[in-house]
Amino acid sequence: MDRRKFITRSALAGTGIAALAAPAVAQGNITWRMVTTWPKNFPGLGVGAQRLADRITAASGGRLTIQVYSAGELVPPLQSLDAVIDGSAEMSHGAAYYWQNKSTALSFFTGVPFGMTSRELTGWVRHMGGQQLWDEIYDQFGVQGFLSGDTGTQAGGWFRNELTGVDDVQGLRFRTPGLGGQVWEKLGASVTNMAAGEIFQALQSGTLDAAEFVGPYNDLALGFHQVAKNYYFPSFVEPGLATELVVDKAKYQALPEDLQALIRDISQAEYDQVASDFAANDPRALKTLVEDHGVNVRQFPEEIIQAGAEAAKEVLTGLRESSDTLTQRTAESFIEALNIMRVRTEGTDGAFVEARRKYFTI
Amino acid sequence: MDRRKFITRSALAGTGIAALAAPAVAQGNITWRMVTTWPKNFPGLGVGAQRLADRITAASGGRLTIQVYSAGELVPPLQSLDAVIDGSAEMSHGAAYYWQNKSTALSFFTGVPFGMTSRELTGWVRHMGGQQLWDEIYDQFGVQGFLSGDTGTQAGGWFRNELTGVDDVQGLRFRTPGLGGQVWEKLGASVTNMAAGEIFQALQSGTLDAAEFVGPYNDLALGFHQVAKNYYFPSFVEPGLATELVVDKAKYQALPEDLQALIRDISQAEYDQVASDFAANDPRALKTLVEDHGVNVRQFPEEIIQAGAEAAKEVLTGLRESSDTLTQRTAESFIEALNIMRVRTEGTDGAFVEARRKYFTI
Repeated sequence: MDRRKFITRSALAGTGIAALAAPAVAQGNITWRMVTTWPKNFPGLGVGAQRLADRITAASGGRLTIQVYSAGELVPPLQSLDAVIDGSAEMSHGAAYYWQNKSTALSFFTGVPFGMTSRELTGWVRHMGGQQLWDEIYDQFGVQGFLSGDTGTQAGGWFRNELTGVDDVQGLRFRTPGLGGQVWEKLGASVTNMAAGEIFQALQSGTLDAAEFVGPYNDLALGFHQVAKNYYFPSFVEPGLATELVVDKAKYQALPEDLQALIRDISQAEYDQVASDFAANDPRALKTLVEDHGVNVRQFPEEIIQAGAEAAKEVLTGLRESSDTLTQRTAESFIEALNIMRVRTEGTDGAFVEARRKYFTI
Repeated sequence: MDRRKFITRSALAGTGIAALAAPAVAQGNITWRMVTTWPKNFPGLGVGAQRLADRITAASGGRLTIQVYSAGELVPPLQSLDAVIDGSAEMSHGAAYYWQNKSTALSFFTGVPFGMTSRELTGWVRHMGGQQLWDEIYDQFGVQGFLSGDTGTQAGGWFRNELTGVDDVQGLRFRTPGLGGQVWEKLGASVTNMAAGEIFQALQSGTLDAAEFVGPYNDLALGFHQVAKNYYFPSFVEPGLATELVVDKAKYQALPEDLQALIRDISQAEYDQVASDFAANDPRALKTLVEDHGVNVRQFPEEIIQAGAEAAKEVLTGLRESSDTLTQRTAESFIEALNIMRVRTEGTDGAFVEARRKYFTI
């Protein structure tokens, strides 16, 4: 406790008011603005941003009220982080890899090709030094990041035609952004990026042969199934996609300690809430796609997965050898942690899932 | 907001004190006792109970202080729930399946053979009606449960001799409790239960041929590797083991709403924290067991896993057909949710983990 807080509390204690109510009394109620990169009511992610805000408001007894602005309401979605940096918002809800132009290390805090699952990511961030590296990166911009949600492994994408092997990928016009796009380019695809709202039209007109967005829960609403019937799994380029809550670090640290704890703790609760939401509702949406819309659910051919693993290794090795020290150190830490944790994920948790798939029906 | 609270807040508002500080002012600071089923500093689980208590204390600004009592300090570990029911504690931290004598439905909120992974469990509890059933069960005892941690899939156990198939299980003297024990009994093992502290001696003297406890993070400290070198994975009878925080429901509901939210939200944050702790530290402990102690890590033979799946189906079918309506309804809800979610777990998340295992090294 710093000296100023101590004095404030001591003074209040004499009034007969419980000293621990001091922060609220001393500071009054606070309202913070949260800008987000998600459309309003976007399943899982946009809904999660609103719920996170509501939970902070509720658990603080209204001492800290969070006002949410969906994508474009206050600033365009991809200016959310800048809005926190320039002070036009106190919080941003989005995904760290949107800000790769600020630091190529940030991809690791969202998800990378053939990288960590959602559970491995929290293992690294919370127990193996990941958060400390993330703090070092964001300290350069005066902000602080917290994990706030995860989609789990995403869908691989919608393909107009069936895939039999790597040959079918050559020249394939595929919408898939980021590092995943780099992997598919190495496999021979002609990769392009476009906003979510443009994908359907491009698939329909034949400008695209394939498109990857999130997974059934989000994709269902966009109607891709009407123009591409082959839905491939899993996305080996997005084995998990974590969202972040970013706060203005100076303003965060000026909050009473209990409110700081509360923001951190509820972001972590929401990580679990969002990941659970996808676990429950993604397969429900997939059921609708298959039973009501005749979608063909397919697994990628082994040849494509194997080539994807080679390409992902090249992409990650590039980051590991980056001239940017923080990117190099982050990649090194991520890979070291992955190599430790995968022994358990693959040999224990994954081995159980595989055993259940093979032998258990009820 | 009820009328009494409204009046209290209105009265305070007139004093110039922020109305939202009212609950703390009106009620003063509260101290609650948390009894636990875990030894002090027990890796992952006991540490998690203490951390949960500390986080509630911190995020409430000390308005709600939680005092933790390890196993035996206030009551014996398996009387923790009774301590909350009879009012000698306000909270209990343990595992729901310890209270199967109160309701056979409670196993489903910890983990069952060939049942849900930790992520599927949160999907069911938070988004598919699981919590409502749990509330109905615990309402009979005047308590409320919240998920508060998870080990993930556990280790299958320590075996003095290598296993080649189901024949090797016949008459095997195996320490493994609960529904998992029922499964192993169906496979031909001679199942026994004993307290953690007695296992080592029984393995050493030859009274036991095999023993299952938790996983590397917990097992390492108990020294089983000194007397049984074959460490089998995965535990198909404990694909996840969730811990619970139980509160006295009447006292919980009498708390100000913000403190109620805080207990619920921080339990959820701890679910993530504990599961991440196991993801990070279980494989580190396994590395020590292999590299420093020469332990042989093995996967169960397919024949045993397949027979285990059949036996687990019989055990779960028994619960599904229970004469206890709540057990029957809980089993039905669990199985329905599992059958929806496993499509994603096995076809997307699990398929990725399997692909990475096969093709990706870095």
